[in-house]
Amino acid sequence: MTQSKRIAILGAGPSGLAQLRAFEAARKAGVKDLPEIVCYEKQNDIGGMWNYTWRTGLDRNGEPVHGSMYRYLWSNGPKECLEFADYSFDKHFGRPIPSYPPREVLKDYIMGRLDKRAIFNYIRLECPARWITYDEQSEKFTVTVMNHKSGEQETEEFDYVIVATGHFSTPNMPYFEGLEQFPGRVLHAHDFRDALEFQGQDLLLVGGSYSAEDIGTQCYKYGAGSVTLSHRGEPMGFDWPDGIEERPLLLRLEDNVGYFEDGSSKRFDAVIMCTGYQFHFPFLPDELRLQTHNCLYPDNLYKGIFFQPNPKLIYLGMQDQYFTFNMFDAQAWYARDVILGRVQLPDDQARLQDMQVWQQEHETLATPLESIDFQAKYIRDLVSRTDYPDFPVEKQAELFKSWLKDKDASIMEFRNISYASTLTGTMAAKLPKPWLEIKDDSLEGFMALKFITD
Amino acid sequence: MTQSKRIAILGAGPSGLAQLRAFEAARKAGVKDLPEIVCYEKQNDIGGMWNYTWRTGLDRNGEPVHGSMYRYLWSNGPKECLEFADYSFDKHFGRPIPSYPPREVLKDYIMGRLDKRAIFNYIRLECPARWITYDEQSEKFTVTVMNHKSGEQETEEFDYVIVATGHFSTPNMPYFEGLEQFPGRVLHAHDFRDALEFQGQDLLLVGGSYSAEDIGTQCYKYGAGSVTLSHRGEPMGFDWPDGIEERPLLLRLEDNVGYFEDGSSKRFDAVIMCTGYQFHFPFLPDELRLQTHNCLYPDNLYKGIFFQPNPKLIYLGMQDQYFTFNMFDAQAWYARDVILGRVQLPDDQARLQDMQVWQQEHETLATPLESIDFQAKYIRDLVSRTDYPDFPVEKQAELFKSWLKDKDASIMEFRNISYASTLTGTMAAKLPKPWLEIKDDSLEGFMALKFITD
Repeated sequence: MTQSKRIAILGAGPSGLAQLRAFEAARKAGVKDLPEIVCYEKQNDIGGMWNYTWRTGLDRNGEPVHGSMYRYLWSNGPKECLEFADYSFDKHFGRPIPSYPPREVLKDYIMGRLDKRAIFNYIRLECPARWITYDEQSEKFTVTVMNHKSGEQETEEFDYVIVATGHFSTPNMPYFEGLEQFPGRVLHAHDFRDALEFQGQDLLLVGGSYSAEDIGTQCYKYGAGSVTLSHRGEPMGFDWPDGIEERPLLLRLEDNVGYFEDGSSKRFDAVIMCTGYQFHFPFLPDELRLQTHNCLYPDNLYKGIFFQPNPKLIYLGMQDQYFTFNMFDAQAWYARDVILGRVQLPDDQARLQDMQVWQQEHETLATPLESIDFQAKYIRDLVSRTDYPDFPVEKQAELFKSWLKDKDASIMEFRNISYASTLTGTMAAKLPKPWLEIKDDSLEGFMALKFITD
Repeated sequence: MTQSKRIAILGAGPSGLAQLRAFEAARKAGVKDLPEIVCYEKQNDIGGMWNYTWRTGLDRNGEPVHGSMYRYLWSNGPKECLEFADYSFDKHFGRPIPSYPPREVLKDYIMGRLDKRAIFNYIRLECPARWITYDEQSEKFTVTVMNHKSGEQETEEFDYVIVATGHFSTPNMPYFEGLEQFPGRVLHAHDFRDALEFQGQDLLLVGGSYSAEDIGTQCYKYGAGSVTLSHRGEPMGFDWPDGIEERPLLLRLEDNVGYFEDGSSKRFDAVIMCTGYQFHFPFLPDELRLQTHNCLYPDNLYKGIFFQPNPKLIYLGMQDQYFTFNMFDAQAWYARDVILGRVQLPDDQARLQDMQVWQQEHETLATPLESIDFQAKYIRDLVSRTDYPDFPVEKQAELFKSWLKDKDASIMEFRNISYASTLTGTMAAKLPKPWLEIKDDSLEGFMALKFITD
């Protein structure tokens, strides 16, 4: 009798949970000799980024806070684009709900399909990874974690390590001249928690992507005095309401006044840096550490997940993301099937060639529409190689394109629009009043709204 | 010819710099065969806690921010209590200055005695420690750091590791019911940067020690609407001005209202947790990791510095601190002399007995006055064992006692008082107007004040 393989999963957010569920699916299908799995989670609950925390900076154990979500956050993409192939919104909620739900509602959905009792068998909470090594001789990883519950470290050996720790937790925070003298709060989007803190204030948001547009519109919604968005490249160009405006790049601050590239200036009460995130794996030595920037096909990952120098190290969800949950599922299923020996990993050279083909296509992508199609194609490729339930990836890609169009048409109103499920065909309900007027973001409050169904 | 010993110093703040300077002093005194030293510093400059940073949470490299200091911070103890034995304030400033200078002025003093060119030979900036192991066979430490300048990790072997990373950087942040719903900023003192952010606001400060009294009085000074200090034990009991008040322990928050143990309640705009710090060494395995709370004689440290299970691991400055810079000096000098073989370390049992004697006395300490004498005695014990220049430790202890008395007499005015140097006898200058009225805390601004000398 051979000893069963051992797998360490780092992180119990959407990616890590997808991986656990992939193995659970095999177990329920009667597969024997499954590997032994330990899932280490830094937070004191599962759910990853979808757990809201009031904490900023460091958590109660002195570890960097994982969460970047804030109060009153509503999905910024239609829920129909992140619907699980094997668990529809209809199944979870029992009735149509709108396309853009708040965070707590989406979290409820993500968690709804989990067999929590089974899942928690694998989980060790409050166990951030400290250091991981790989021994060429024994072909095993040694994983040391800090168990904050016991106050002691734990060190165990594994055949595979699956890194599912996310890449939207470690702020990228550039310096601008004068920031050290700015007489008000300076924060990164990662530490933004409650728009009410900024009621009546004149806000400067630096950045031109999702964080800037979402935090900007939210602060407007909750009563900021004004929102100024400063961008490095092209303006976002949305139809901003009075009270939100775009300016070119911030050059410097003097006291509480910001000076911009076009020669204009404005006084601000607070500065929010919406300047993105870094890939940060302080628990990995260089030879195991993924080094990339945020893009749709990070280098050195075969099929987007197997670390090329050592494919027993697997990274989930390291892509920039249009697709999310169901992409993580597709990755997790494929990783599982390789570990179970159902799918044979090609040799180094073949993997390299495959990566190069994808990378070459990746480099040609010129528009968001092409990027969406590319990510859909990537997912289709993964799904076709496992028994993950087939789902209409390409239809979801089309939905993403509609979403982009609708958001372009009205940044303040796109969340009032409804889409049909690509799985069940169910048309989403409509909000009873515009998103801009609904201030309560709680699960209870949302589900108590009188949704309009045709 | 034997290979010279190698020493890793972690941290180039006051403790780490004291250690470097101790070895430099030996070198300048003509000692040959000095060990090879590498000092790894997480920040991008030397100076440790005395570097002000506008950043909070994580730094530009994604590492936890070291600094807990804020703008407009003035020393909360007389400078005469932290005067270096071998470098007087007179020598540095050339004329008498007041007893309570702002941060930048004190930093200038600390840095003034350094031979920067010599010191920087040892320093590697932006190199946080990642993981350290000790090999019983070779009797060497393996130290891995992340060199953020090169983007690559560095791994080297050392005979000694000196941990000088401080213990006022990792917040201790308790939960109170309702914090997750509080509609304003919630922060730890560690992330407090600029009192002007809180102008006109009603502030709740939780905590009853130095952070609470200093941040509270400072926010008052810079125009907070009101300051409410909530404490677990006895009230601080200072003669607070109108606008600052103490209340017993916070029980819970509901929306923006805090409810206290005495049945009272009050509406707040922001909550600042002045609830202390944790000892946090994420780069050390359990067998090398100091586990203690903030006290005057941490367990497991012989003479307050040698880690009992492995005395080639040395911890500097891990005590709670009345004395600071000159205590670090005394520790560094003693550590140096042990490493150089000038002082013989007793065996395990003798070290244990020595620790026990100190611990027993430590346990009897009942008042701040006794605590001051205890720390003075500890320093005297260290100084007597090396050639560190003798200095009037006991006189400085008496100064600390005067300081406590003067602070008790008037929390808003004690910074206007002057003391005489225990080294030179020079009487400190007086501020030309009360501390409460001087808003500029810059080195230039402070030195341009017309100090009053008798």
